[in-house]
Amino acid sequence: MRRVAVIGVGQSKFGELWDSSFRDIVLSAGVEALEDAGLEGKELEAMYIGNMSGGRYLGQEHIAALIADYAGLAELNIPSTRVEAADASGGLALRQACMAVASGMHDIVIAAGAEKVTDVGSKAMEILASATDREWEVFTGATLASLYAMIARLHMREFGTKPEDLAMVSVKNHKNATLNPKAQFRREISLEVALNSPYVAEPLRLFDCAPLSDGAAAVILASEDIAKKYTDTPVYISACSQASDYIALHSRKDLLTMQAVVHAARQAYEQAGIEAKDVGVAEVHDSFTIAEILAYEDLGFAKKGEGAELIREGVTCLDGEIPVNPSGGLKACGHAVGATGIRQAVEITLQLRGEAGKRQVDAENGLALNVGGTGATATVTIFTR
Amino acid sequence: MRRVAVIGVGQSKFGELWDSSFRDIVLSAGVEALEDAGLEGKELEAMYIGNMSGGRYLGQEHIAALIADYAGLAELNIPSTRVEAADASGGLALRQACMAVASGMHDIVIAAGAEKVTDVGSKAMEILASATDREWEVFTGATLASLYAMIARLHMREFGTKPEDLAMVSVKNHKNATLNPKAQFRREISLEVALNSPYVAEPLRLFDCAPLSDGAAAVILASEDIAKKYTDTPVYISACSQASDYIALHSRKDLLTMQAVVHAARQAYEQAGIEAKDVGVAEVHDSFTIAEILAYEDLGFAKKGEGAELIREGVTCLDGEIPVNPSGGLKACGHAVGATGIRQAVEITLQLRGEAGKRQVDAENGLALNVGGTGATATVTIFTR
Repeated sequence: MRRVAVIGVGQSKFGELWDSSFRDIVLSAGVEALEDAGLEGKELEAMYIGNMSGGRYLGQEHIAALIADYAGLAELNIPSTRVEAADASGGLALRQACMAVASGMHDIVIAAGAEKVTDVGSKAMEILASATDREWEVFTGATLASLYAMIARLHMREFGTKPEDLAMVSVKNHKNATLNPKAQFRREISLEVALNSPYVAEPLRLFDCAPLSDGAAAVILASEDIAKKYTDTPVYISACSQASDYIALHSRKDLLTMQAVVHAARQAYEQAGIEAKDVGVAEVHDSFTIAEILAYEDLGFAKKGEGAELIREGVTCLDGEIPVNPSGGLKACGHAVGATGIRQAVEITLQLRGEAGKRQVDAENGLALNVGGTGATATVTIFTR
Repeated sequence: MRRVAVIGVGQSKFGELWDSSFRDIVLSAGVEALEDAGLEGKELEAMYIGNMSGGRYLGQEHIAALIADYAGLAELNIPSTRVEAADASGGLALRQACMAVASGMHDIVIAAGAEKVTDVGSKAMEILASATDREWEVFTGATLASLYAMIARLHMREFGTKPEDLAMVSVKNHKNATLNPKAQFRREISLEVALNSPYVAEPLRLFDCAPLSDGAAAVILASEDIAKKYTDTPVYISACSQASDYIALHSRKDLLTMQAVVHAARQAYEQAGIEAKDVGVAEVHDSFTIAEILAYEDLGFAKKGEGAELIREGVTCLDGEIPVNPSGGLKACGHAVGATGIRQAVEITLQLRGEAGKRQVDAENGLALNVGGTGATATVTIFTR
C-alpha cells in the first residue's frame, strides 16, 4: 500500500443556503479544492461522493454521476461513486478514495461530501431519523435526538455527568466557530443561554443539538510522490479505518460505548503507529453534545465515564492539551450530513498545514471521527504532517 | 494487485415478494452465498451493498449497517459500505469489493445488492426516474421509459431497427427465463404478443420494459490463494471497470452511443487481455429492449447500427455464438434495481462453473454490463474460468 497525501481542500459555507442549488454547493467546494491543489479537473482520475439522502432531500439519486457531469468532468468518463452511511457518508467517501490511491489503482482522486437539506422544511428531521433502524426505532416514534437523549440520561446516571458538562461542549464549539469564516453559527453563547434553551428531547436542549445544514466539502488525495510535485505542505493520511455496530440501540450490550468507534480507533492507532495521547488536534462527531463526551472516552482521550472531566478542565478547548472541534464542530460549524466527514478532513488538514487562521493550534497529528446515526458506522482517520 | 476470485454466489427469487421484508430478502441471498462458499459469516472481513433508493422505497438509509446487523455480523464490527449509482449500484458494490481484495486490504469480502420496491406501489416508477437528471429531465415529465423511447426512435430512424427487433430481444429473454428457477417471469411470450402489447412510451411497449422487482443477490470474493482453499471451481474476475457519462440525454453528443459503456468496456478488455470476440457469454443491462441492442454495439459485439442483426440472426440466443442474458436478463429474470449488477455476476459465475442447469452455455470468458439510469454510469466486469 502506498502512502496517501491530502493535496487540496475546499469547503462551501455551511448553513441555510437558500440561494444555492445542491449542484452549486458541491461545485464551489470542489473548485476550491482544485485551486488549493493547483490542479485542473481533468487531472482527476476518480471521484467519491458522500451523501446521505439525495433521494429524499432532493428527489435525486445517482448523485455521483450528476456531480461528475455538472463539474464538467463527464467528458473524462472517470468513475464516480456515491457512498452512504447516514452522517458517516463523508468518512466513507474519504476511506474509499484513500484505498483507491493507496492500492495504486489511481494516482489523484477527489473525495467530496454534500447535503442540501433545507428545501424539505420540517421533514428534514424525519429523514435524518432514517439513519437509525426504521422498523424498530422510527416506527415507534424515535428521532435521533430522542435516542441520544437516552444515552445522555444513562451517562448522567452511571457517571454523574451533568447538564452543565453538556452545555460546556456547546459553549466551547460556538466559541471556536467565531474564528471559522465557513461556520454556520459564528456567535458565542453563554452557559446560561445553553442551559435555559428549550428541551428537544430531555435532557438534551436546543443547544445540545447540531443543526441540519446545507453544505459541501472536498479533499484531493494523491500518492506521496505525486503529492510532492503539487505541494510543499502535504498532509499524510496515516490511517483511515471503518467499523460497524448494531444499528438499533436496544441491540447493544452497552449504550454508553460506541463499539464502532472503539474498533475503528484501535485499528487506526495501530496502523498509524500512534496512541491516543499523541493526537494533537481532533474533529469529532458532536451531532449532540453527549456524542462529543462519548467520543473523548471511546477514542481513548479519557477513561470510560470520565469524558466530562476533559470539558470541565478545559483540556479540549482551543488552548487545551487536545483541542477538539476547533472548527466549531457539527454544533456550530454546522452539520451538512453527508459533507461532515469530509469537512472534518478539511479542518484537520488546515490545522496541520498551519493555515487555520485565528483558530490555529499546534499539532503534529490530527484525528477525525465521523459517526453514522447513533454509532452503527464510524470512521477514524489519522492525519500527520 | 492480486487476482480476485468469486468463491460463493447466492440469489433470492426475483419478483413481487410481498411476504418478505427487505432484510429477509438480503439475508436469504447472503446465506446462500455463504453456504455455496462453505464459509461462516464470521470469516467475512468487509461488506459492500449496492442499493439505489432505500430512502424512498423503505424510508431507510444507512442500509449497509442495517444489513451487517441483521445478518448477525455487528459483533464483528467489520466495515459495511453502501454504494449507489441508480441501477448500477450492484456493479459498483462488486467493483469496490474487488478493489478491497485486489489491493490486499481484505482477503474475503461479500458484495451484495438489494432492492425492495413493491411496497410503494405506483410511486416506484417516479422513484426510479431519480436515476436521471431530476431538474432537467424528471421535472419536465420524463420517465426512464420515455428517455429510452427517444433513443429507440432515433435508432430506428438512423439504422432501420424495427419494432420486431426489439420484440425479439424480449421473446429471447422470456424464453431463457423459463430455464431459470430464480426468474420472475418464467413463461415464453410470442412475437405477436410482444408486438401487440400496449405502449408504455412509444415505440416501447409493455414487453420492451423490464419490470421493477424485489430481490437480492450476493457474491463472495477472495484472493486467489484463499479461493483455492474453499473451492475447486474458482471463477476469476479478470477486470472490473467503471465509467461515467453526462447524466441528462440532452447533454450527450450522440444519443445512440453510451460512452460510459464504451469506455468501461475498452478498459475491461484491455485489463483482461481479451477482445469482444472472446466473450463467450454475457449478461447485459436490458432495462429496455433497446438497451440490449445498444449494449451489443457499445460492447463491440456488433458495429454501431448493426446491433439488431445479432438478434435477427440468433447470435445472442442460448445456442448462438454469444449467448446474451441466459438468465432471462432484467426483462424476464427481473430487475431488482440495486441487486441487478450482483445478480449478473451470480449468473456468469454459475455459467463458467458449469452449474447453470438447463440454461448452461459453453464459455471460457463471461462479461457483465450494469448500467445506471440512461447510461450515466456503467460497470463492465469480465470473468474467466
